[in-house]
Amino acid sequence: MTQIHLDKSVYSPAFCDLCRPNGSRVALFADRNLPYAETLLDYLKKNGFAAELFLLPAGEKAKTREVKQALEDTLLEKGFGKDSLFLAFGGGATLDLVGFLASTYLRGVPTILIPTTLLAMADASIGGKTAVDTPHGKNLIGTFYLPRAIWMDLTLLETLPQKEWLNGLSEILKAGLIADASLWERIEENGFDPKDKPALLGLLEKAIAVKTRTVEEDPEEHSLRAILNFGHTVAHAIEQASEHAWPHGQAVAVGCLAESYLSHLLGYLPAADFERIVRCIKSLGYPLGPLPEGLLEPMHHDKKVRDGKIHFVLLKKIGAVFSSCNEYTHVVDEKQIVTMLEWLDQLGET
Amino acid sequence: MTQIHLDKSVYSPAFCDLCRPNGSRVALFADRNLPYAETLLDYLKKNGFAAELFLLPAGEKAKTREVKQALEDTLLEKGFGKDSLFLAFGGGATLDLVGFLASTYLRGVPTILIPTTLLAMADASIGGKTAVDTPHGKNLIGTFYLPRAIWMDLTLLETLPQKEWLNGLSEILKAGLIADASLWERIEENGFDPKDKPALLGLLEKAIAVKTRTVEEDPEEHSLRAILNFGHTVAHAIEQASEHAWPHGQAVAVGCLAESYLSHLLGYLPAADFERIVRCIKSLGYPLGPLPEGLLEPMHHDKKVRDGKIHFVLLKKIGAVFSSCNEYTHVVDEKQIVTMLEWLDQLGET
Repeated sequence: MTQIHLDKSVYSPAFCDLCRPNGSRVALFADRNLPYAETLLDYLKKNGFAAELFLLPAGEKAKTREVKQALEDTLLEKGFGKDSLFLAFGGGATLDLVGFLASTYLRGVPTILIPTTLLAMADASIGGKTAVDTPHGKNLIGTFYLPRAIWMDLTLLETLPQKEWLNGLSEILKAGLIADASLWERIEENGFDPKDKPALLGLLEKAIAVKTRTVEEDPEEHSLRAILNFGHTVAHAIEQASEHAWPHGQAVAVGCLAESYLSHLLGYLPAADFERIVRCIKSLGYPLGPLPEGLLEPMHHDKKVRDGKIHFVLLKKIGAVFSSCNEYTHVVDEKQIVTMLEWLDQLGET
Repeated sequence: MTQIHLDKSVYSPAFCDLCRPNGSRVALFADRNLPYAETLLDYLKKNGFAAELFLLPAGEKAKTREVKQALEDTLLEKGFGKDSLFLAFGGGATLDLVGFLASTYLRGVPTILIPTTLLAMADASIGGKTAVDTPHGKNLIGTFYLPRAIWMDLTLLETLPQKEWLNGLSEILKAGLIADASLWERIEENGFDPKDKPALLGLLEKAIAVKTRTVEEDPEEHSLRAILNFGHTVAHAIEQASEHAWPHGQAVAVGCLAESYLSHLLGYLPAADFERIVRCIKSLGYPLGPLPEGLLEPMHHDKKVRDGKIHFVLLKKIGAVFSSCNEYTHVVDEKQIVTMLEWLDQLGET
């Protein structure tokens, strides 16, 4: 089981105590744009760790098989053995790559994840999915591999730009929509102020609880775990059609709107709930357009496609998904998807 | 759990029935030197499978990250999805590569292993270890990933050369030495005749039972699984020092002799048992020399090394290892390792 430590400083004896039993040699991997990787390295060294820093290409560029292979060769060259601990320090891309690297290095070494964005804290760090991208698409090669622990130090978020806050918030909104009405209502009633740390902590706790609960029940996504994909059929299409000009979180916010519309159109989600969703997401300041062209095509390559048909996770109310016979994804007719995309285009223009 | 099917033809309705629920599209991977890969492909197609054949570089040459990556790109290009079944058809190298490939393709697709050598049936196919080699050594990058099933068709062994029989027999001998005296005694009393199929079947059943029992108790080799490494500290040193001119199984036979000597030298293994081991292994026709020079050095890179010290699995009698406080590997002084290597050199010269 993964331990989750929330809101404790990474520069602390508690963090050192967590690392110590997991390995006698520490490899610290960090996004090369992270301003405080050297600070953590120095802190670890001062506390007696044999630690080395490995800087990764920025963001998604780190997630390739070539980067992984080069790191493996360097680690082997330096003699890192089974008694090593890998620390992943950065956003979702860093955690995905380092998790995958660790899962296959000498058939597995322990990892501790230290997410540095709200998006990575609320979503990417939890649930053991690791991966790299290939020219054919994102996250196509990877493993399910749980870290020993996830260390979430909220002070690391203090320098995040506004865009990054919205990016992370949309996965929190999604968690509320699919499984926790009280989480959704908190944001609906109070809005979102990243400087209000107790409020942020409360939201994170609830979003993390939704994800861990879901993943524990279905770790390898045979059924229930698919609900975490709400909003993502459309979001991935937006990301792909825009050639990743749309950041993930912003695409997810629009995706949640689109798939709420679909849930309403198909008669599962009551009008009142649907209107609340639109009002709240609009009020948070997400850009809703202009959307890229050609959103239907990439949906045909969505991982939930079965027998050639596009599937969606659908809401039945705020805080609950529709399911039937233990199925959490549902075929939707292409005509209705087109209607949804037209609605979405109009929304982006208003 | 992995199902093991022993001594049923792979060209059978039973094999098709096993495959069918595991995937709607079949990727059959085979060593390019295997004479009957096309036959199996045709059989699968005739039985209604959408199957494709992927030929791998021969033997250990298949076990590289580059081969894995090229296969991934081809599979993605051809649209193999999560509903694919991977069949690995070949010796240990093929099974290691395909198991690793399957474990990370779309975060895991089901596999069925069809070993075609005695060595792969008795050892490599069982226990879920997958890996590729790197320039720094063998099996350094890989996963623990259980296949859905292992299909052992003894008729596939009929064309094996003599060398390959001895290669597989040594892992059976090892299984007897560490955990099943009755298995050892069967070979000691009757010798080994690969044409005696009922006898072969009996030996395989017992060797497989030793391995599955051990692996089930300690799947990721934190403790007990290390006993399967008996004979392998010396065997790996011989393989490495000879630049792999020594086949694995022959090196394991010599390794079992060497580590039995060490067990006796240190006072754990009685003289009578030790002499029986030497007599039996000699009688089976294994070449015992000439050994390559420089066997001590590679032992320092053995995976069981801890705190810079070489560790061995040691026997306390035929059919049982020595253990102390749940530790199955033991530090041995370098002076005694040197004494053992001198004894081994003399043995090879006689």
